[in-house]
Amino acid sequence: MTLDDPTPLGRRDRKKRQTHAALAAAALRLVAERGLDQVTVEDISEAADVSARTFFNYFPTKDDALVCDPGADAVLRALAAVPTDQPALEALRRALGEVVHEVQGDAELWLLRLRVVMQHPVLLARMVSGNAATEQALVEAVAARLGLPPDDVYPVLVVAVAGAALRTAMLRWATSGGTGSLSALLDEAFAAIAAGLPDPERG
Amino acid sequence: MTLDDPTPLGRRDRKKRQTHAALAAAALRLVAERGLDQVTVEDISEAADVSARTFFNYFPTKDDALVCDPGADAVLRALAAVPTDQPALEALRRALGEVVHEVQGDAELWLLRLRVVMQHPVLLARMVSGNAATEQALVEAVAARLGLPPDDVYPVLVVAVAGAALRTAMLRWATSGGTGSLSALLDEAFAAIAAGLPDPERG
Repeated sequence: MTLDDPTPLGRRDRKKRQTHAALAAAALRLVAERGLDQVTVEDISEAADVSARTFFNYFPTKDDALVCDPGADAVLRALAAVPTDQPALEALRRALGEVVHEVQGDAELWLLRLRVVMQHPVLLARMVSGNAATEQALVEAVAARLGLPPDDVYPVLVVAVAGAALRTAMLRWATSGGTGSLSALLDEAFAAIAAGLPDPERG
Repeated sequence: MTLDDPTPLGRRDRKKRQTHAALAAAALRLVAERGLDQVTVEDISEAADVSARTFFNYFPTKDDALVCDPGADAVLRALAAVPTDQPALEALRRALGEVVHEVQGDAELWLLRLRVVMQHPVLLARMVSGNAATEQALVEAVAARLGLPPDDVYPVLVVAVAGAALRTAMLRWATSGGTGSLSALLDEAFAAIAAGLPDPERG
């Protein structure tokens, strides 16, 4: 393989991504149907038409296939790409737009994932601690952007509030059954936050 | 007992509160020392000098003694007491001030609780879902204050953001080992949010 011929790598990556998605989808579908304890790695692998050994090339445990968070790296990369003359809140809005884009592009899987996670506290805990790791990385990135020490309150606060905006948008979107634009819901939440969250006009 | 003589009830309530606090403190201390799986309800009861039967008068399970959230009712009552001409964000600041007051008043126990919960994902999940129930009640209360339907985005968003402010303040306070004023940290976070979270001045 040379730089002039990237096709084989492209195809292999595409195939890997497909297998990853097929395993996650199978895991979520089976757990939604039967409950967490009634589904094994073997069941998931069989449903995705791969061996259990292949499963473990993609996920270290069953739970990882259910809560997998493909957005963490994407959001950090997207944040790094926002010009540093943009305020941190706006930079986070754009970076989380990447997550939202990915979620919206795979709406059915994400709606299933949100439902399964809400039904299983152990998965919720996994997702929360996964989010905590992503949050910490975002806090450090925001502090670096602003030339602030990592223990300054502002990066911690703005990342926590941005997370609240994302959560609110995802929740509204899931409640609506995934109809409507998740991006628009996210932008609406960030606009209200940037305005200082004044009460809406009373009707 | 008559209205002129509230002492017996006062004393009984005080005693109940003491037992509740003693059980929570014993549970947290033992779990911090030994780990969650190495501590039984019997161990906790013995350490607090009550019977296991008494334990179950206060907490339905061991985990409940560890994550107990005495602030939920207090914050709802405090929110109801804030005049409705105050904006929702300010009303939430005052209501969460009650939680913070309680936490600050029992700093040692809360620092231990935060540490134990962070170390045990299953407790974190319990705390998160407990918080979710409190959040839902706050969302409904804020919607009612503003005459908005409960599925309007604003109450959900303002409560989620207020939660982020509380979490940020608690985290900073815990990181500092409980020195300093948690109330001041909370007020600082709310002030930044009310201003729309502009970047701090660059030094």
